[in-house]
Amino acid sequence: MREREGIVGQREDPDLPRYAGIASFALLPQLHEVEHADIAVVGIPFDSGTSFRPGARFGPAHVREHSRQLHPYHYLHDAFPFRDRQVVDAGDFRVGPYDIEAAVAAIEAQARQLVEQGTRIVAIGGDHTIALPLLRAAAAEHGPLAVLHFDAHLDTWDVLHGASIWHGSPFRRAAEEGLLDLEHCQHVGTRAGVYDPSELEDDARAGFAMIGSDEFGRVPAERLAARIRERLGDRPVYISVDIDVLDPAHAPGTGTPEVAGISTRELFAVLRELRGLPIVGCDVVEVLPAHDHAGITGLAAAHTAWEFVTLIDLPER
Amino acid sequence: MREREGIVGQREDPDLPRYAGIASFALLPQLHEVEHADIAVVGIPFDSGTSFRPGARFGPAHVREHSRQLHPYHYLHDAFPFRDRQVVDAGDFRVGPYDIEAAVAAIEAQARQLVEQGTRIVAIGGDHTIALPLLRAAAAEHGPLAVLHFDAHLDTWDVLHGASIWHGSPFRRAAEEGLLDLEHCQHVGTRAGVYDPSELEDDARAGFAMIGSDEFGRVPAERLAARIRERLGDRPVYISVDIDVLDPAHAPGTGTPEVAGISTRELFAVLRELRGLPIVGCDVVEVLPAHDHAGITGLAAAHTAWEFVTLIDLPER
Amino acid sequence: MREREGIVGQREDPDLPRYAGIASFALLPQLHEVEHADIAVVGIPFDSGTSFRPGARFGPAHVREHSRQLHPYHYLHDAFPFRDRQVVDAGDFRVGPYDIEAAVAAIEAQARQLVEQGTRIVAIGGDHTIALPLLRAAAAEHGPLAVLHFDAHLDTWDVLHGASIWHGSPFRRAAEEGLLDLEHCQHVGTRAGVYDPSELEDDARAGFAMIGSDEFGRVPAERLAARIRERLGDRPVYISVDIDVLDPAHAPGTGTPEVAGISTRELFAVLRELRGLPIVGCDVVEVLPAHDHAGITGLAAAHTAWEFVTLIDLPER
Amino acid sequence: MREREGIVGQREDPDLPRYAGIASFALLPQLHEVEHADIAVVGIPFDSGTSFRPGARFGPAHVREHSRQLHPYHYLHDAFPFRDRQVVDAGDFRVGPYDIEAAVAAIEAQARQLVEQGTRIVAIGGDHTIALPLLRAAAAEHGPLAVLHFDAHLDTWDVLHGASIWHGSPFRRAAEEGLLDLEHCQHVGTRAGVYDPSELEDDARAGFAMIGSDEFGRVPAERLAARIRERLGDRPVYISVDIDVLDPAHAPGTGTPEVAGISTRELFAVLRELRGLPIVGCDVVEVLPAHDHAGITGLAAAHTAWEFVTLIDLPER
Amino acid sequence: MREREGIVGQREDPDLPRYAGIASFALLPQLHEVEHADIAVVGIPFDSGTSFRPGARFGPAHVREHSRQLHPYHYLHDAFPFRDRQVVDAGDFRVGPYDIEAAVAAIEAQARQLVEQGTRIVAIGGDHTIALPLLRAAAAEHGPLAVLHFDAHLDTWDVLHGASIWHGSPFRRAAEEGLLDLEHCQHVGTRAGVYDPSELEDDARAGFAMIGSDEFGRVPAERLAARIRERLGDRPVYISVDIDVLDPAHAPGTGTPEVAGISTRELFAVLRELRGLPIVGCDVVEVLPAHDHAGITGLAAAHTAWEFVTLIDLPER
Amino acid sequence: MREREGIVGQREDPDLPRYAGIASFALLPQLHEVEHADIAVVGIPFDSGTSFRPGARFGPAHVREHSRQLHPYHYLHDAFPFRDRQVVDAGDFRVGPYDIEAAVAAIEAQARQLVEQGTRIVAIGGDHTIALPLLRAAAAEHGPLAVLHFDAHLDTWDVLHGASIWHGSPFRRAAEEGLLDLEHCQHVGTRAGVYDPSELEDDARAGFAMIGSDEFGRVPAERLAARIRERLGDRPVYISVDIDVLDPAHAPGTGTPEVAGISTRELFAVLRELRGLPIVGCDVVEVLPAHDHAGITGLAAAHTAWEFVTLIDLPER
Repeated sequence: MREREGIVGQREDPDLPRYAGIASFALLPQLHEVEHADIAVVGIPFDSGTSFRPGARFGPAHVREHSRQLHPYHYLHDAFPFRDRQVVDAGDFRVGPYDIEAAVAAIEAQARQLVEQGTRIVAIGGDHTIALPLLRAAAAEHGPLAVLHFDAHLDTWDVLHGASIWHGSPFRRAAEEGLLDLEHCQHVGTRAGVYDPSELEDDARAGFAMIGSDEFGRVPAERLAARIRERLGDRPVYISVDIDVLDPAHAPGTGTPEVAGISTRELFAVLRELRGLPIVGCDVVEVLPAHDHAGITGLAAAHTAWEFVTLIDLPER
Repeated sequence: MREREGIVGQREDPDLPRYAGIASFALLPQLHEVEHADIAVVGIPFDSGTSFRPGARFGPAHVREHSRQLHPYHYLHDAFPFRDRQVVDAGDFRVGPYDIEAAVAAIEAQARQLVEQGTRIVAIGGDHTIALPLLRAAAAEHGPLAVLHFDAHLDTWDVLHGASIWHGSPFRRAAEEGLLDLEHCQHVGTRAGVYDPSELEDDARAGFAMIGSDEFGRVPAERLAARIRERLGDRPVYISVDIDVLDPAHAPGTGTPEVAGISTRELFAVLRELRGLPIVGCDVVEVLPAHDHAGITGLAAAHTAWEFVTLIDLPER
Repeated sequence: MREREGIVGQREDPDLPRYAGIASFALLPQLHEVEHADIAVVGIPFDSGTSFRPGARFGPAHVREHSRQLHPYHYLHDAFPFRDRQVVDAGDFRVGPYDIEAAVAAIEAQARQLVEQGTRIVAIGGDHTIALPLLRAAAAEHGPLAVLHFDAHLDTWDVLHGASIWHGSPFRRAAEEGLLDLEHCQHVGTRAGVYDPSELEDDARAGFAMIGSDEFGRVPAERLAARIRERLGDRPVYISVDIDVLDPAHAPGTGTPEVAGISTRELFAVLRELRGLPIVGCDVVEVLPAHDHAGITGLAAAHTAWEFVTLIDLPER
Repeated sequence: MREREGIVGQREDPDLPRYAGIASFALLPQLHEVEHADIAVVGIPFDSGTSFRPGARFGPAHVREHSRQLHPYHYLHDAFPFRDRQVVDAGDFRVGPYDIEAAVAAIEAQARQLVEQGTRIVAIGGDHTIALPLLRAAAAEHGPLAVLHFDAHLDTWDVLHGASIWHGSPFRRAAEEGLLDLEHCQHVGTRAGVYDPSELEDDARAGFAMIGSDEFGRVPAERLAARIRERLGDRPVYISVDIDVLDPAHAPGTGTPEVAGISTRELFAVLRELRGLPIVGCDVVEVLPAHDHAGITGLAAAHTAWEFVTLIDLPER
Repeated sequence: MREREGIVGQREDPDLPRYAGIASFALLPQLHEVEHADIAVVGIPFDSGTSFRPGARFGPAHVREHSRQLHPYHYLHDAFPFRDRQVVDAGDFRVGPYDIEAAVAAIEAQARQLVEQGTRIVAIGGDHTIALPLLRAAAAEHGPLAVLHFDAHLDTWDVLHGASIWHGSPFRRAAEEGLLDLEHCQHVGTRAGVYDPSELEDDARAGFAMIGSDEFGRVPAERLAARIRERLGDRPVYISVDIDVLDPAHAPGTGTPEVAGISTRELFAVLRELRGLPIVGCDVVEVLPAHDHAGITGLAAAHTAWEFVTLIDLPER
Repeated sequence: MREREGIVGQREDPDLPRYAGIASFALLPQLHEVEHADIAVVGIPFDSGTSFRPGARFGPAHVREHSRQLHPYHYLHDAFPFRDRQVVDAGDFRVGPYDIEAAVAAIEAQARQLVEQGTRIVAIGGDHTIALPLLRAAAAEHGPLAVLHFDAHLDTWDVLHGASIWHGSPFRRAAEEGLLDLEHCQHVGTRAGVYDPSELEDDARAGFAMIGSDEFGRVPAERLAARIRERLGDRPVYISVDIDVLDPAHAPGTGTPEVAGISTRELFAVLRELRGLPIVGCDVVEVLPAHDHAGITGLAAAHTAWEFVTLIDLPER
């Protein structure tokens, strides 16, 4: 067996191809192998907040399997995401499928445990419900957060089918709980699902400005990024990427796909302009393997998590 | 628009091919079009009791779409399933995804409404959780039932992840509630999922004898059917087919597939030997379209429901 | 059963999730439920004019199934497409697969019946052959039409394999029959299938100017839309979207896919600039479910029809 | 280039793997390469007689692609199907999609050309409509035929949607035209699609006895084969295999799949008992690649054609 | 983190559903977690010996992912496969794709290391080439082996495309190397790929008797098992299951699928009659995830490995 | 049989639809049918240099099947690619899977044979390893080449898993062998796979400048093309398109997919600006049919080859 001492990065074994072996995220060490983790990639296999196609509980396993090809060097940033900080795969949070409230509490407790040790979380969902307990844990440590939210949908809706907490309400609940800085949150890629103009008003009240997917292709990424930076201000930032922000061509494997989305290239073009943000947590959610094809959604989500890890702590140029 | 008067069967319109038009089950009339229904095929799009792959909430739509080719004459029985009784598609029960207890109550209430009008239900799931409220409604009318249960699994398990009612427990809960005749229930096609011998004892206590899938191919269908008849006695019979009783080759579209199952031909060979049973309700559950291919699971489930409708009231030869 | 009185929109039942129930297009009322329809979405399950991959006869069922998530409010237009006019699902036209001429006549007759009652048709194909009888019905009411045609192909070809009417000839036949205004038709997204320069001349003679798919990405949507508006003039407009105008990445489920197409976002960017056009009919055709994946082509077509319904009668800003 | 002289079999080139090169059926020579062909495998890419899912026009290309692994020796028969007779791939018949009558005439003409040269045809469909012109060509040479018909359906129906000739009527039309020996035809694997008992009477009048799929598994293949032999008598035999005789688990890629079918092993078990029959023509039809998975239907059809070629001229043991 | 002391079985954590967490085979401990392993399930991600469809290098990851539902109790045997012996997942052997000889040597070395510690190997392929080094390791410990080989193919062929060692030659090479007991080896399920009768003679010389797939369904499993037992004698037994012994309906995900195979139920019916054999090693190979559907091939292979583990050391009743 | 005399183009038979018949590339004549070929499209079914998902050996067959709809006229260039030069399908090169060195030698020998006759090669892979022997053959005729390389990856890496020649090293080996003009090579679409900055230095030393995929969408195609032209200078040009330069949405069927790629429209926009280049050879590689969907990757590759053939000899405007 290979020794692991001190700070370690990805598995490097010239005799074990990347397709081989039991895969942790990006072939990184697991949490139990290290003394301390600076960043923990963690799966949250929970999808009972889903309102349409369920199955995102299989997201973490799918994303891990499609993270085998992630590399140690990000040449556009000239950065080594896994070198100077201890990044680990913390496995999956323990969470059952049958009780949303209990699940949210369990996620929060496990997230707090990491956050309290100074570990920043990059979460892989699971449906978007999981953002609520993650925001609770992050806000407990950092105060009200500037949320940067890539999504086809607003996710600031109220009760659905009797549930207050579901995958369309996490940011409303977060705003009500004081977890969000109501002047500094930003949607990106929005395009779908509004029943009434009042929902847009509610959304604004929950702290969000909006960049629709229709602005992509018309407005350069640099300009969009500048607007985002301005909106976020200097608050601690939490980034949440619902994979359905991508066009279904780029992410067929998701639960509430919406046409006219953005591409992975457009998503990363914006993310790459965000060096220097004080990022305290991230998630990529709503990967539904049963509807994926050739793993393209899994690859997109794995790569997004890799961009997150690279971006955290990355100084402005 | 085509007139419908008196007792009616499937849509018959020489200018509208079977692939055309909005599909009700088997192109039958809908409940709101008739005065009284003898048999109602009803969808129950609920899958929140699932312990592995969810998505059976899309089962009813999928099964309807694959029921377009069902025909009015069953030549092996020389029977016209839709001719002498009013069979309808009652649409889907109203049931939300976020609260198992509430969902079970809602299903029970809607089922009772039909049962109390003398309508027998052929339910299309949805996950196996839905059997519990359907058994409650049937038993309320008919007393303890002899359940004939085709399934890879026992479904008499106890609490999982904190839930008492989930898709692995309906028959345990039913037994506890006195809905089953504890001498006259029968599993068929069992093969999977046992953690401990004590579960087999619990299962027997819940009223079930077992015919494993391993008996198929070795024991002729006639002999299996004779054992089933003997076991069921003359109690009112409720038939529940978890589509995972079929081999994954025959039903890939299901949530907890188990290899070494039976074929559709073997399933129907047994069912066709059961003329004359006092059937008071039926279900076919656990159809998961996201994992289906070429609709073969949908076809199997639609055909199973057609066999149910044919079998109800069919006298012994 | 829910009451429906007066002008009604989509099904709204808090206890019946959008994935539940027998689906009409966008969960709208059906034609037989209303006194009068302003706009009728109608399926035309005919694909016998196909020259390559057939199967678009299953298009209407597929598009309906993927229209469940369409919403009542279009926030980019600040419009309620289903509120101020009666929009219905008129089911599928009756049309058999074995005789193109007879089918075209049947479609025309049924379309005329609607048009004569003042109902505008939004048709869901079926292959592109169906545009011919729809144009006949619309022109009978409105005179020669300005056709706005989104397609990878010209569809102004002549006889193929002995057939005068097939899915590559509807606009040639329409031009010959005087249904088109020969100065005011427009192709958008063209890129494929030309055997000889003479076909481009024939095409121009049939009344069409061309915006190739290669102009997208280079020319802003606003500019393309301006050219379109100028070309269409103030004639009654018929919009026809062959889903293969989309890139195969966005619409794999079609019969003659052509690479280097446009995205759904690009399609809608143009459509959204067309407020105020006197639209008298629309179609979206060539959806082939057997080649679709995760429903993305079905979603694109359903959304296109939703854009059509929104756009009809929408005043310029 | 490799030389081919005299009687030749499959391509044998140790440097060209079986997955390489442009594939003829079983890597056999093409018709234009030989002086005379004893047996011609020919594709008939016609599917306009289809009543449900179309697309079998792509069957020949799919079956060829999945015939690359067919081998020169059939060890169960101790026979070399490609050694002692000249077997070729005759390519595809020229036939357009738009006119059933014209297509049937074209198929007949091309088939007659082969038959008149003493070439026996093994046809790959295409839909079942193509059996009619093939029967015409064979009967013109051999008189009324004993048809051995493996199919889920009877295919002796009358007019549908105005068409007299479609994929559900070939054997009725053939009987009417005197192409069948009305005492000696046999269905095998029947199970579906009957609307009324009168259809069974019509079917018997068209010359057919029936072995249902329900007899498989209960009655040994040897006994079924004996009944078949007795029924066929000593008439010239034409074998038609609709691939939907197989269970959808074994042949998902077909246009009107019916559950409760037979397996490929069961099909071949019967075929292998039929040595010594005076076979004058064969077809395997209704392969629909768009619904196939992993090529399993293509493999089944390719293998069926290989069994045909082996069986032709094979003496009884 | 959960403690593991002494002999341990599968992960048992009521808060971590089976779909959650990084999956070892059957959620068993990994090799590095234990002092000694009695049985090691090990992946061998090598497929460069493949002659047709490659991709089995992804087999181990796929089988692990589909082993999450394997249970601790085998009720048909009344056995606890993971209780009384230490069974582990030993991860994947280190083996590169570019040099067959080097790969075979590396596999042998790693296998020997386990075997020499008294660990029996249950290998998951990878293509069938891997059987050769596994046989070398087993024979080095136990002397010439009685191989029980389930496969559609003989795999006793000679050189192909210049390679002596490839996935069609492992048992020929093994026989030549003296690893097989030439009186006591047995093929089961054979049906394909013979070019010439001489190959059958070569095969017999390599020590094999044959039970064709055509015997299944005709001969009861008990009788087949009795013949197998007689053939194997009392030699140390190595069981090799090429997943293509299954019919493509049951195992579409494999590289050289052959129709007319056996079902998983038939495979297990035979295996379950083999209690008491002195099994010294096992493999299940040729799982090709890219052609699998809904995981059914992965499930079949995972379950086969579970049957192996159960069968090892299981006394005759 | 159709006559072919003198210079010929695609099959033109009004009675044989494009989906019918055994398909050569673009329905062109085969090499053995002509006296001399100016351009030969040739398949190279070799994938043993693959480091991740194998299966590109099936690429040539897949691309041919999806080339049936390519047309004789390229209207954007006003060019007839198949009219004024003899273009043929030369079938597949003979190459086995088991020995990389031997395969590379075999490919080189066969390529030289064509090149020496003045035939330019448009190769369809196969994995990227095949570029090395093709470059050898082209450079032997034309001296050091200016390579224009579209790819997500650099493919100038060194030894992997002991292999010097694999699909990630062809351009490094080519540079070492003096086949490249070290001042005039160009990557386009790069975005992935770098482990260390030193690899970028190695890459530059191998002669390449880089245009990343991130420049697309930001920089117009005309500008990118101008940079490419400047870089290539007036050296003989070899164009290599790894289909993974496309985004996985556009080319899911490939072995090492990388998100954030370019679209087919973007690829062709650049290619179409390159009229007048002295192109001496081309390839399109890494098409992996097992992961393709609806043939979209096959279509993209077939169309790319069509663009190549059109571009060769095409004068600047």
